Amino acid sequence: MTASPPVRMLADCLARLREGRVRVHALTSPVAAERTANTLLALNVRPSLTGNPPEVAGFVAAADALLVNLGMLDGTREAALTPAIDAAGAAGRPWVLDPVFVDVSGPRRTLAATLLARGPAVLKLNGAEAAARLTAPAGTVIVTTGAIDRVDAGSRRLAIANGHPLASRVTAAGCALGAVIAATCAVERDAAVASAAALAIYGVAAEIAADASDGPGSFGWRLIDALAALDPDTLMTRTRLQ
Amino acid sequence: MTASPPVRMLADCLARLREGRVRVHALTSPVAAERTANTLLALNVRPSLTGNPPEVAGFVAAADALLVNLGMLDGTREAALTPAIDAAGAAGRPWVLDPVFVDVSGPRRTLAATLLARGPAVLKLNGAEAAARLTAPAGTVIVTTGAIDRVDAGSRRLAIANGHPLASRVTAAGCALGAVIAATCAVERDAAVASAAALAIYGVAAEIAADASDGPGSFGWRLIDALAALDPDTLMTRTRLQ
Amino acid sequence: MTASPPVRMLADCLARLREGRVRVHALTSPVAAERTANTLLALNVRPSLTGNPPEVAGFVAAADALLVNLGMLDGTREAALTPAIDAAGAAGRPWVLDPVFVDVSGPRRTLAATLLARGPAVLKLNGAEAAARLTAPAGTVIVTTGAIDRVDAGSRRLAIANGHPLASRVTAAGCALGAVIAATCAVERDAAVASAAALAIYGVAAEIAADASDGPGSFGWRLIDALAALDPDTLMTRTRLQ
Repeated sequence: MTASPPVRMLADCLARLREGRVRVHALTSPVAAERTANTLLALNVRPSLTGNPPEVAGFVAAADALLVNLGMLDGTREAALTPAIDAAGAAGRPWVLDPVFVDVSGPRRTLAATLLARGPAVLKLNGAEAAARLTAPAGTVIVTTGAIDRVDAGSRRLAIANGHPLASRVTAAGCALGAVIAATCAVERDAAVASAAALAIYGVAAEIAADASDGPGSFGWRLIDALAALDPDTLMTRTRLQ
Repeated sequence: MTASPPVRMLADCLARLREGRVRVHALTSPVAAERTANTLLALNVRPSLTGNPPEVAGFVAAADALLVNLGMLDGTREAALTPAIDAAGAAGRPWVLDPVFVDVSGPRRTLAATLLARGPAVLKLNGAEAAARLTAPAGTVIVTTGAIDRVDAGSRRLAIANGHPLASRVTAAGCALGAVIAATCAVERDAAVASAAALAIYGVAAEIAADASDGPGSFGWRLIDALAALDPDTLMTRTRLQ
Repeated sequence: MTASPPVRMLADCLARLREGRVRVHALTSPVAAERTANTLLALNVRPSLTGNPPEVAGFVAAADALLVNLGMLDGTREAALTPAIDAAGAAGRPWVLDPVFVDVSGPRRTLAATLLARGPAVLKLNGAEAAARLTAPAGTVIVTTGAIDRVDAGSRRLAIANGHPLASRVTAAGCALGAVIAATCAVERDAAVASAAALAIYGVAAEIAADASDGPGSFGWRLIDALAALDPDTLMTRTRLQ
């Protein structure tokens, strides 16, 4: 099977991650921290997670991309958001906004709108969060996950039809995907291509993991093994890009 | 084998959870967050975990039950307790109190006594915590876990003789059980029956998981798989209710 | 094979942990909390993790050793450090300092230097952190992890050549090792021997786990199973002490 050029671009993103030179700083929730870090490590990306306001700028400056995940937000992490995004901007690093549960919490919706105005490379939403109808600035790519994952970059729209329902039974699987998008944005300037690469990597690994799983418990660690084992050729063969 | 009527009531609780309409908001510790969320997801219950004081009432209002777990308490989560319990009361939602390590910490004992006076549906203790001799108000069901789990609802007392010692080798296994009790309280108004259902579900799943496990590491994820696979008929057959 | 006397001393540490009487209080990061607790439980050590400043002294007083891990530091945990170290000192309990990412964060380096001056039993570093060149007081044993783990106790130097590269692909594996060092310090007054014991226990278990693993996901839980199953004889046979 010959892969079309775009799929080859996605596989190139994976190949670049495998070189082991990318660092991602993830401001994320306690429930997502371990899976997020292990997902990045499985892809040969080095994670850091500190959300301490006086330290966060230093960590972001040492990283190649930033994830801002609003799950289980607290005052300390909220105070770290501005210095973190400032540091990413100063260093020219892409950042990804994942406004978890923005559909449930009014204060979080207000905060998410303020952050979004600062222009993340990617806004990542699930179906419920998309219903909150946040307004993204031009230039921010919107990823909406679901049975088919969609990438909206204004005039360009992509869809990736990989993945497995078991992922929705594992907490923080979506949060960890946000970190993968940050990682691919560090190796591919076109955030739409980078997002599609992350969705394909994650979705194909989920399919491989699900084939061998007996339930969400085994799927949880098999997904990490599948991410660690995935190679660009397999990714090209299995990606269903529409 | 014909199940006695009470065991059928426990199985009905599981069947109702499987319908997928229950949400539980869990105010719990960082160490317990991931297992708690995955345990609920395995039972087709949707978890949320935010402990941010300005946001917590909104999350509780969107949930069907509340867990208040005092493990690894910090000032932020402590400040969220009152708005969370207020919101549960205003919405008529049951809540469960798990005063982790109340036997070790004096300040936590004082806090637990204050919370207990607000009348949770269930107070959950392990053997060591039970020795702290908290005084529960009439109407609060007391669950004490151990080799045999006990449910004390004043005049009614039940005992469930399921479970496996490996569960005591997995951190937060007890904390996650507290979230299951909250979930069953959302589908069964009689908190004694709901508690017995949660103990039976968790204990039978633990037995099934332990049969296939080589140690606490494998037991950890097999417990999640067993919870996801457990059906009401198996629960009825295996529950040892006394 | 006859084990040399020092290796027998390491195996004795494991045997003493297996008696189940040791408690370790771990002030550690949210990302490391679950693995740290499960690692201790696998070794029959009872963990506690509370970082609440008003409560921490009580928890440390009830424990046999203290771990101070600076990963993902925040203001609350930082405020708990002094009362925790004071309580350890008052009770004559050993404590271990793991200044995670001290090489990346300036403020953390300053804090680590201040804590180090208080004289932990052991300072644990990875190779990158060792490059930050913290100055340890006389009497503090320095552990530096790597392909070969090194124990520097001034005139005495030990090296342990066990372990597996997969451990570096699992988040918090190094943090959990710090807790194992705290545990062995609780059963062996000579902190150099205790550190070597912890490194050998962890390294041999990692080798056993890696043999059966397909990637970092499976290695993660197999490491816990291997720690739970490891016996002193196997440890003596497999330890490569230099």
